[in-house]
Amino acid sequence: MNHKVLKSKIIKIFKKYKLSNEHALICANAIINAELVDAPTHGLSRLKMYCDRINKKLINPRPKIKIKKISQSISQIDADNSIGFVAADIAIKEAIKNAKKTGIGLVGIKKSGHYGMSGYYAEQAVKKNLIVFCFTNAPPAIAPYGARKSLFGTNPVCFGTPTSSKVPFILDTSVSVINRGKIRVAERAGKKIPEGVALDKFGKPTTNAKKALAGVQLPISSFRGSGLAWMVDILSGVFTGGNHGGRVKDPFDDFSGPQNIGHLFLVMKSNLFVGNYSKRIKENIKRVKRLPKIKGVKEILYPGQRKHRRYKKNLNKQINIPFNIAKDLKKLDA
Amino acid sequence: MNHKVLKSKIIKIFKKYKLSNEHALICANAIINAELVDAPTHGLSRLKMYCDRINKKLINPRPKIKIKKISQSISQIDADNSIGFVAADIAIKEAIKNAKKTGIGLVGIKKSGHYGMSGYYAEQAVKKNLIVFCFTNAPPAIAPYGARKSLFGTNPVCFGTPTSSKVPFILDTSVSVINRGKIRVAERAGKKIPEGVALDKFGKPTTNAKKALAGVQLPISSFRGSGLAWMVDILSGVFTGGNHGGRVKDPFDDFSGPQNIGHLFLVMKSNLFVGNYSKRIKENIKRVKRLPKIKGVKEILYPGQRKHRRYKKNLNKQINIPFNIAKDLKKLDA
Repeated sequence: MNHKVLKSKIIKIFKKYKLSNEHALICANAIINAELVDAPTHGLSRLKMYCDRINKKLINPRPKIKIKKISQSISQIDADNSIGFVAADIAIKEAIKNAKKTGIGLVGIKKSGHYGMSGYYAEQAVKKNLIVFCFTNAPPAIAPYGARKSLFGTNPVCFGTPTSSKVPFILDTSVSVINRGKIRVAERAGKKIPEGVALDKFGKPTTNAKKALAGVQLPISSFRGSGLAWMVDILSGVFTGGNHGGRVKDPFDDFSGPQNIGHLFLVMKSNLFVGNYSKRIKENIKRVKRLPKIKGVKEILYPGQRKHRRYKKNLNKQINIPFNIAKDLKKLDA
Repeated sequence: MNHKVLKSKIIKIFKKYKLSNEHALICANAIINAELVDAPTHGLSRLKMYCDRINKKLINPRPKIKIKKISQSISQIDADNSIGFVAADIAIKEAIKNAKKTGIGLVGIKKSGHYGMSGYYAEQAVKKNLIVFCFTNAPPAIAPYGARKSLFGTNPVCFGTPTSSKVPFILDTSVSVINRGKIRVAERAGKKIPEGVALDKFGKPTTNAKKALAGVQLPISSFRGSGLAWMVDILSGVFTGGNHGGRVKDPFDDFSGPQNIGHLFLVMKSNLFVGNYSKRIKENIKRVKRLPKIKGVKEILYPGQRKHRRYKKNLNKQINIPFNIAKDLKKLDA
């Protein structure tokens, strides 16, 4: 389906589910963006879930989002159980505003939900020539180092900076070795998963995809990744007032209450300390790119570059909608 | 040697090398701390190097450190090629002061040098009930993803938070599989390094420490670790005005100029968004600790906990000084 057609469909659906024009547009933009960068797990495949949660009054389609100014640099947002997209969109704009005014902007958000891709918000700040961190927590997926039960989310570390070109540097990396979807694919194909990726339900390392799905996923680099996941949970949950320590509910199958996800956005003017940031970052990237490459590598890409290429390529293509999602879409749009 | 005796020896040496009483004390404290937490790579083993660089006028023993106030929250420090310990000590105190006043403190440091352990500075902020990030870059050690030549330093990501107990949560993790100092120690001791840690200069895996030092270290989790290393180089080098993109000189064997390392410290009041941070973080840690454990694990530790235990244990023990370092010490102290 053409992405413009799809977008108006999504807007129509969200409005049917009581969102305002403005909020429906924010959500549709975020979902379409996920599809265009080939991250369908954060796109259309979640649409029905959002609508279900609105139906069950776990997402508030008409939230009264409160922005509390703590200082000229710092704001707190109570998102009143809005869809995460809406909370995050308002929050990143607030953080940008604060940073533009004072050099640094910090925004803590609570009572939010799954907001899609961190990089999508980071990009907004980068386009205003700002450096940015986005943190969010998520439902339990990763076992802390030493544990055999998951508690941390895949908790991305997301960092962005302008590059002096149109393609932003956006590092948006989860702390799990591979994503759950890949394990599901291996299971269906009867294939093994790599070593060091997951434990079975008894806490023993496994390469059996089925056993891995019943067990836990492992963080990257054992205690290091576990520590990073813990850090993100503290920053986005403990610090902001959101849920934390394994209490963020899975949006797909836990309808016992709102998610109360927390996010933390930090934005800084890129030229705070140097007058020529743009020149410096350009030089930095150039130095990395001209290094001798390992066999088979034609170009060293910076984080975000590959995603940007996919986006540009997909802009002129039809978005492929899997059968079951097309069915959902039809029902929601009925 | 008793750590108090050792400390006065180090102070005496640094004073002989023209440092002020105050700066010599700062340096000695940092070095002794590294020894007490069993991180000898960041301790005594660097003393001769610092003195050599002072002799060669690459470290300024009497720096005129300039603190430029950019706002009430933000300061820039030109460390005038001081020893990194001194620059970092002044900088973290400035960041703490800014955060105490405004809720958030950001300090960018340029013209600094190797400052030892990030966690040592993070701890200062945590002890004042603050949340903290410390970033520093370092000489080339890690090959960017896709390259066969090192460019990024082992670039630690360091995050700290108060825990409501006396033992701070300090995640201080380099993005290399093992730190360069450990390879250096192995080299001096004539020992092998583990497999999967480094490549020689031809891009072949090696367990030979000397060949590893001449080759490249591997980042954790390939492109993820490479992206994190790049992020830290941008934050501490490009952003602050320090060297970056592979231009930080190796302090041990490159005497062609000062290091001009950059650091970035970010400090935030822990109760910015919630009134009960202390209770929340305590609950968070409790939830992780009571998870079922994998076989052989008695207790799940948070980052910094093991280091704190080592510190307490070592306080009442003699510090073990390897033969070649004892020889250096004797010469420097002559």
